[in-house]
Amino acid sequence: MDDLRERERRVLGELQEKLGYHFKNPMLLFNALCHSSYAYEVNQLGRDVKNNERLEFLGDAVVELVVCDILYNKYPDATEGEMAKTKGAVASEEVLTEIASQYELGKYIFLGKGEEKTGGRTRSSIIADTFEAVCAAIYLDGGLKKVMEVFGEKFEKAIEVFLTGQRIFDYKTALQEITQERYKELPEYRTVKQDENGRFVVELYLQGQKVSTGTGASKKDAEKDAAKKAYEILTATNESSSNSN
Amino acid sequence: MDDLRERERRVLGELQEKLGYHFKNPMLLFNALCHSSYAYEVNQLGRDVKNNERLEFLGDAVVELVVCDILYNKYPDATEGEMAKTKGAVASEEVLTEIASQYELGKYIFLGKGEEKTGGRTRSSIIADTFEAVCAAIYLDGGLKKVMEVFGEKFEKAIEVFLTGQRIFDYKTALQEITQERYKELPEYRTVKQDENGRFVVELYLQGQKVSTGTGASKKDAEKDAAKKAYEILTATNESSSNSN
Repeated sequence: MDDLRERERRVLGELQEKLGYHFKNPMLLFNALCHSSYAYEVNQLGRDVKNNERLEFLGDAVVELVVCDILYNKYPDATEGEMAKTKGAVASEEVLTEIASQYELGKYIFLGKGEEKTGGRTRSSIIADTFEAVCAAIYLDGGLKKVMEVFGEKFEKAIEVFLTGQRIFDYKTALQEITQERYKELPEYRTVKQDENGRFVVELYLQGQKVSTGTGASKKDAEKDAAKKAYEILTATNESSSNSN
Repeated sequence: MDDLRERERRVLGELQEKLGYHFKNPMLLFNALCHSSYAYEVNQLGRDVKNNERLEFLGDAVVELVVCDILYNKYPDATEGEMAKTKGAVASEEVLTEIASQYELGKYIFLGKGEEKTGGRTRSSIIADTFEAVCAAIYLDGGLKKVMEVFGEKFEKAIEVFLTGQRIFDYKTALQEITQERYKELPEYRTVKQDENGRFVVELYLQGQKVSTGTGASKKDAEKDAAKKAYEILTATNESSSNSN
């Protein structure tokens, strides 16, 4: 820890709070968050910082075992083929990025300046790889059980979502992650009215502009619906604007 | 355990001795050893036995994490690419079969009569799959640490062998497995002489017939050399005679 800069130490502290897991050896978490672009950049300035690629490799196997364990134990009637298909879908970049977004992981990655400029912080591949590295860091620090304790429920949820055919499980959190990164602000939900059927109508605003309108049987459901629509609008924009990368 | 036949119970007892691991729940080991052909056959007779395919699926992930853990911890200088290549080679049917042969695992698999007749007991794919299932059974029974305790050294050795470019690490054991299965006897090593350079010459006999001659700086090395040659002769024969499967 002595070798870390003030900002790095603050980031580690914040993320550990968010994860609800405090490392015996926080350097493992630091290692997990160091993208190769950052390690390269600071090593040019005379430091000796490892990038997270080896941890990411280990983390891939950690994630797969966590997913297989849940499939084996919670779905006793699933065949080997069904388990294989589900594992493929859940231990995927898309789902790992979604889980990572619930912890705003993108915010905490150490990136080089170039990677930062070209939007690396919101790139799925970087977020998913870093998430795997964080799983490996927890595994090395506290064993597989701790990984289960920290992320088990998220994976269970992701498996359930896949098996019931939904896609994203928490649009409000996913959207929040994006708006904080992109506009440094949270979306504003305004409850407009209840319609003739008693359904709630909620409008979602970003930077004073209406982005979407959601409806639902409760205020919460209407907010979720608005978040889902806004998420789809913003990620569609993001994909087309980042095509040049 | 009450549901098991006398022969099944004996097999479980013997294999646990050989593994040096005693299950809290031996039914997990029974499940791991039940090839689909056996489960099908005995279920036709009114039993309710699960085949080992789900355990094999879980075991695949257990083996991969064990291998990645060793690579990460014992080879701190290996790059992510080198680790991936080594994992691919070590978590392979060939190597898993070799490790399994050190426990004579083939002997303990529960097979249906048809599969038995067509040589299933010596088929690499069946042995490797069953080995993965056994890894999963130990994982479920005692956790990942127990898998490491039971098989860690074997995997370490296999990794070392791959990285130093050898192929099989224990020809004497591998050969013994084959001769016991095929001829119900062990190979006989006869030390013939030391040659003019002080090197030992050993002849290997099976059923009274000389199969190979080995040389080495010690009697032990000469035996290994003879075992390697005999192993290659016997497995070559086996491959051509089992082409019809």
